[in-house]
Amino acid sequence: MTYKLTLCYDGTRYLGWQRLGGEDAGRTIQGKLEAIVEKLTGQAVEVHGSGRTDAGVHAEGQVASFRTSYDTTPEELLAYMNRYLPEDIAVLAVEEAPERFHARLHARAKTYRYVIRNADAPDPFRARYEYRVTEPLDLQAMREAAAIFVGTHDFRELCASKRTKKSTVRTIYSIDVAREGALITIAYRGDGFLYNMVRILTGTLIEVGLGRRTAQSVTALLDTDRRQRAGYTAPAKGLTLVSVEY
Amino acid sequence: MTYKLTLCYDGTRYLGWQRLGGEDAGRTIQGKLEAIVEKLTGQAVEVHGSGRTDAGVHAEGQVASFRTSYDTTPEELLAYMNRYLPEDIAVLAVEEAPERFHARLHARAKTYRYVIRNADAPDPFRARYEYRVTEPLDLQAMREAAAIFVGTHDFRELCASKRTKKSTVRTIYSIDVAREGALITIAYRGDGFLYNMVRILTGTLIEVGLGRRTAQSVTALLDTDRRQRAGYTAPAKGLTLVSVEY
Repeated sequence: MTYKLTLCYDGTRYLGWQRLGGEDAGRTIQGKLEAIVEKLTGQAVEVHGSGRTDAGVHAEGQVASFRTSYDTTPEELLAYMNRYLPEDIAVLAVEEAPERFHARLHARAKTYRYVIRNADAPDPFRARYEYRVTEPLDLQAMREAAAIFVGTHDFRELCASKRTKKSTVRTIYSIDVAREGALITIAYRGDGFLYNMVRILTGTLIEVGLGRRTAQSVTALLDTDRRQRAGYTAPAKGLTLVSVEY
Repeated sequence: MTYKLTLCYDGTRYLGWQRLGGEDAGRTIQGKLEAIVEKLTGQAVEVHGSGRTDAGVHAEGQVASFRTSYDTTPEELLAYMNRYLPEDIAVLAVEEAPERFHARLHARAKTYRYVIRNADAPDPFRARYEYRVTEPLDLQAMREAAAIFVGTHDFRELCASKRTKKSTVRTIYSIDVAREGALITIAYRGDGFLYNMVRILTGTLIEVGLGRRTAQSVTALLDTDRRQRAGYTAPAKGLTLVSVEY
């Protein structure tokens, strides 16, 4: 049977999604999940995530899948996993999935949210989920630059793995920049995102918002022959994987 | 000049309000605040809190006061403190106060909130502020018991310092028990609370809610001759000091 899991986590304490060996196995989300499924089923298992969230990145709706021949039910899996998971990870739903379902290969779209607190003081209860920028940000300029990134482009200059031989072409369906009080939220929806891509897009948009680069200048980042430098990589803690569509 | 500070903090990382010596000085809220005021003014200072929150207890509206002969303004103090405080502490307001104002001695009422998540799974983003109880809780019974605590009583059996020679008589103005979805919130308002008193009241109300003691039986806890045993001390993380009235 193949199971589909929907889960949320506070990524603060973790080294990211991807399982690591040795002492770090328990400091990854994948490692935690696999250990618990193996404890229940007595079988080695590989839990595939829709994508690898970086160290410190959070998820409200990460999706994962695994296969097992162990005789169980979605209800038992849900209860068992939530009983043994630490409090910063929770399984929201477990469903039976088509036999060949694979959380990464079948993902069609993902939505990420980046939250910036544009204020002098932090909110101590939200500081783990927000990146604070004290200088004022020009939202109109950020929206203009964001509109340039929307569409199908080669994002090679906007990811952390520039030397990959794999395709770095991705489609961004939308980037919404919204302000509510001191909070600026940037929501990205696309068919997939490269390593660190959302954080680099965000750092670039922040530089635009601060007036350190013009909205129009970001066009050059999508031209891989021009070798422009993208913005900095915004901190992981402001980023949350919101949902995955299949 | 005497200044009144209103501040909030996530108490998770701290050993509580009260300054400790040696290496632990920086692991207390008072120690952090005093170090920053001393850095600005160049003078030793004592920052008085409205009360000592325990290790791990949070505050949304703690009030503190201090005196200094250093020539400054509320605006400068606010900006300076928020610049140097860690992200889990924030100063919300600084005001000039009457010369003899003292945050502890002049406090007339305090409101605390205890949050229980009555569910099988945690909310990973709120787990630091909620205590999880998986078995169902009988709210009606909890409300009946809470009503017995309201009023002026000797709370000696409901605090962690039973042998004190000081008065253990306090007045609780109200205890409101409310449910919203999986969250049960208990709001306590009173003229003052003894050491661990809110957490022991909460543990006792939870035992009533679980059916382990009757609502009526808590009456005996207010009779210091009967030496009944109070409920357990509910964990610090679910507790927040909401506001202080003067």
